[in-house]
Amino acid sequence: MISKSEIKDKIINAVETVKQTNPMAGSITNTVTINFVANAQLAVGGSAAMVYLPDEGEFLALAGGATYINMGTIFPVYEQTLPHTAKVLHENKKPWVVDPVAVGIGQLRGEILKKFKEYKQSIIRANASEIMALAGLWELEGGTEKSNAKGVDSTDSVVAAKDAAVALALWTGGAVAVSGGTDLITDGKLIARSFGGSFFLEKITGSGCALGGAMAVYLAVTDPFTAAIAGHAVFNLAGMKAGNVSSAPASFQQNFLDELYIASAIEISENHLEIEEV
Amino acid sequence: MISKSEIKDKIINAVETVKQTNPMAGSITNTVTINFVANAQLAVGGSAAMVYLPDEGEFLALAGGATYINMGTIFPVYEQTLPHTAKVLHENKKPWVVDPVAVGIGQLRGEILKKFKEYKQSIIRANASEIMALAGLWELEGGTEKSNAKGVDSTDSVVAAKDAAVALALWTGGAVAVSGGTDLITDGKLIARSFGGSFFLEKITGSGCALGGAMAVYLAVTDPFTAAIAGHAVFNLAGMKAGNVSSAPASFQQNFLDELYIASAIEISENHLEIEEV
Amino acid sequence: MISKSEIKDKIINAVETVKQTNPMAGSITNTVTINFVANAQLAVGGSAAMVYLPDEGEFLALAGGATYINMGTIFPVYEQTLPHTAKVLHENKKPWVVDPVAVGIGQLRGEILKKFKEYKQSIIRANASEIMALAGLWELEGGTEKSNAKGVDSTDSVVAAKDAAVALALWTGGAVAVSGGTDLITDGKLIARSFGGSFFLEKITGSGCALGGAMAVYLAVTDPFTAAIAGHAVFNLAGMKAGNVSSAPASFQQNFLDELYIASAIEISENHLEIEEV
Repeated sequence: MISKSEIKDKIINAVETVKQTNPMAGSITNTVTINFVANAQLAVGGSAAMVYLPDEGEFLALAGGATYINMGTIFPVYEQTLPHTAKVLHENKKPWVVDPVAVGIGQLRGEILKKFKEYKQSIIRANASEIMALAGLWELEGGTEKSNAKGVDSTDSVVAAKDAAVALALWTGGAVAVSGGTDLITDGKLIARSFGGSFFLEKITGSGCALGGAMAVYLAVTDPFTAAIAGHAVFNLAGMKAGNVSSAPASFQQNFLDELYIASAIEISENHLEIEEV
Repeated sequence: MISKSEIKDKIINAVETVKQTNPMAGSITNTVTINFVANAQLAVGGSAAMVYLPDEGEFLALAGGATYINMGTIFPVYEQTLPHTAKVLHENKKPWVVDPVAVGIGQLRGEILKKFKEYKQSIIRANASEIMALAGLWELEGGTEKSNAKGVDSTDSVVAAKDAAVALALWTGGAVAVSGGTDLITDGKLIARSFGGSFFLEKITGSGCALGGAMAVYLAVTDPFTAAIAGHAVFNLAGMKAGNVSSAPASFQQNFLDELYIASAIEISENHLEIEEV
Repeated sequence: MISKSEIKDKIINAVETVKQTNPMAGSITNTVTINFVANAQLAVGGSAAMVYLPDEGEFLALAGGATYINMGTIFPVYEQTLPHTAKVLHENKKPWVVDPVAVGIGQLRGEILKKFKEYKQSIIRANASEIMALAGLWELEGGTEKSNAKGVDSTDSVVAAKDAAVALALWTGGAVAVSGGTDLITDGKLIARSFGGSFFLEKITGSGCALGGAMAVYLAVTDPFTAAIAGHAVFNLAGMKAGNVSSAPASFQQNFLDELYIASAIEISENHLEIEEV
């Protein structure tokens, strides 16, 4: 089993490499929080680019260090764009993050997510209800038949999603990250718990989307488990620091983005983390 | 005639219920201000979710406490999505808010808004030029044959739109809210005037859209007239407070969103309001 | 050759006219930074409106003082919307700004940009890699066969794009603006260099898009060369002032938008500028 200090070293290395090399992580992501995603990616040191068309998804998949696909708002062209881009990513062994936002709403969203099963994402990042619904859609252990989400918000606890998260990670061979009070990240063998954050992260839209985007930036330079932990760590650290000096959501959001930018590799690696075997 | 103190009590009740129950109000809204709409909905205590496809519009219409439809930016799929979602809302007696942004620009926008006539919105919220153009499109009293709007901005005064607003409210049986210097809200029998706000609300994009989104949140827990007044009241209160401490639009916008979050039910109910019969 | 003091007078006149007349500059622009574009247009004194459909593009082209077309995120309907709107603008001699974001990514983007050659934009605004790639696409001097851009970011220096910028300006008869460390604006005969800005302008997404939107506002009231210089001047001034009081990107962005609003015509005209013949 990898030790916590080895994980810390990997986080430091990933964060510093990103700050030095400014890797591009292209996205196909929802219109609600697309600006926040891009600015979060820039804040942690990456370069952002967003597209909608199939051949443009393919272009970014091949040109970028990693790719972020977020299902928040589905356009008709996604019927072509998302499966095609996912196939290109998979066949070219390019790392990617998928955020199955609002799994359970609408037919096309479900069809695309079903097709994603064979393309084995490097990181699946979502809230607890979405993780459980995706495991259900893929007929894996710990899944629910229907999503318990309220729109885009979870009604399940992170703890309840542990089995589904592990089952998804064992299937993909990558990492699965469940956001909530205490975040849970697993590669199917280990469980990492990341602490911190702020109450206000749920009072602004898109903190989960921005987190997925930041993970894609780290994924351009490191392995999925490290990238997912590093993403949660920098969000929990910046959330905590911003929360300490903010009394309302909009000023929190500005402080949070600032802290994402300011956070050093050492600080991020020292954010409270616990590791155990599954 | 309902008294001002009865309206105040209803506002207090609606605002507190929203803060306690976090109702979901789904939206189909424009890409320019979609993030501001979602964050305003969260700030007043609601939960936000945005979609574009017909079956997803239906899903949110049925799952949400109320729905917000904003016509700002029209995609081709809206030809199916908007009439279908409106029909589902109407047939299932689910409350909804429509914001006929830029009525008069383009063919599809006008066609959809014509179809909306039969689906009788709970709340129509717009600026004066749009209210008058919509009444014209629906061949109601007070309407103009063409919109006087400059793009998305009104060139008419709120006072000029009074007859059109009353005619629209009498047709829908819901409430109509006209934004401007002093906002006018009517249910066809009463006229409420809401005072406050800030010069800076016109120097940032989307304050009207965000207001429609906030009204949808209140509409999930109260009647249309109360929801429309509560929306204007919290916006006028937060605008006034933010305006007092801001010297430029971007810092105003942050302060404004913060004040939306901070505003208590009592404060909102005490924002300057006048009521008279039509 | 026009003197620097004549240019200064034109800038003062343009900025003051905008602040007094609030001209509408409609946009077809990307979803990532659409809100920033609109708020920047409002901050400098204009009125913003965004659309996607062909007949709505035509409407804004004819109704607005100038139009802004930004290629950042391409939707399928753009195959109709962009060439049609460009044709309407050209045939009606309406001024417009094009921002060929990410030229080189995908087939449709390239096809549309090829068609744009005959419609001779008033202002082309982009980073160095995009300017060189567009010149290449149009088979003009100084062009590159492929784009060197990393996603939406330049890898070429402004200096390297000078020949391409001049060639593009000679072709269109308008102005070409290249953003970078020191910005270069040319009408094919003169080269203007605009100084200032901030390191943080590259740490937030969309400063280039917002700049194109602001130029469109100025273009509604003045000639292309003046509008492009005025846009760069106000961005460099606001960037410098905001950079002096900001230590991280999100607070910088807020300060920057505030400074765009606060900047006076005189201050903008006095931002460091150098003029020489090509």
